[in-house]
Amino acid sequence: MVTRLLFFTTIFFLSFNAHSQSRISEKDSLEIMSVMTFQENAWNIGDLNSFMMGYHNSDELVFSGKNGPTYGWNNIKQRYLNSYPNAEIMGKLSFDVKKIRLVSENSAYLIGEYYLKRNSGDSYGHFTLFWKKINNKWFIISDHTTAAD
Amino acid sequence: MVTRLLFFTTIFFLSFNAHSQSRISEKDSLEIMSVMTFQENAWNIGDLNSFMMGYHNSDELVFSGKNGPTYGWNNIKQRYLNSYPNAEIMGKLSFDVKKIRLVSENSAYLIGEYYLKRNSGDSYGHFTLFWKKINNKWFIISDHTTAAD
Repeated sequence: MVTRLLFFTTIFFLSFNAHSQSRISEKDSLEIMSVMTFQENAWNIGDLNSFMMGYHNSDELVFSGKNGPTYGWNNIKQRYLNSYPNAEIMGKLSFDVKKIRLVSENSAYLIGEYYLKRNSGDSYGHFTLFWKKINNKWFIISDHTTAAD
Repeated sequence: MVTRLLFFTTIFFLSFNAHSQSRISEKDSLEIMSVMTFQENAWNIGDLNSFMMGYHNSDELVFSGKNGPTYGWNNIKQRYLNSYPNAEIMGKLSFDVKKIRLVSENSAYLIGEYYLKRNSGDSYGHFTLFWKKINNKWFIISDHTTAAD
């Protein structure tokens, strides 16, 4: 009983800014963070196929950038290929996650920043990601990104 | 039985682009649309207090604009007051809702565009809203807006 209480107390304090209506478990937040890290690493070896695995492979997936929304996993992948045709333009990506909030048992949103270090000029901005847990795995289903430059 | 079948068939076709994992009921989509219309009308009579009623009154509320995220209902209201100090700068607002998707029973996202007609120059852009149904009423919990200009 004490062990169990200690376990839940630990989970509570490790949660991201626990809040009555949107507390996220340590397990869920770590799973989401591991997808972000996986995406960073994939990008930084120029592996866009692996980077795209963080996104739900669905026609419903939406990426909203400077020019409005792009719908569908394939279209979004093509958009990345067009915008970042080679490793030099892809640069070195790092994410800075500011907030993760659970919205329902299997959905969450994440606020963060990205930095792209490049010889041709750095790029940075901020994003809001909407996540859904599908078959016990978290995927991005909506990405709204604003470049600061 | 026939009546019931007809009812569900009607609901199905009236749903916003029904999809197995994110179909939204007619009732939910109409409720969300009515909040959007309420916000439009409130904005267009210069009533920012009523406009803000579409947002969940919570410190968790987040608005992400050009300069990154602002957290908390009061801070977001103040941001609107600073950016739109009078009816002339507020202009005439209209929303164009492109897509609504249910993510869980009580959460949804919405993709849309806004147009602001003003003597001092029109403004437009696009946004991704996350919605949560709280005590049987839909509220915006996250707004990421990108101005096209």
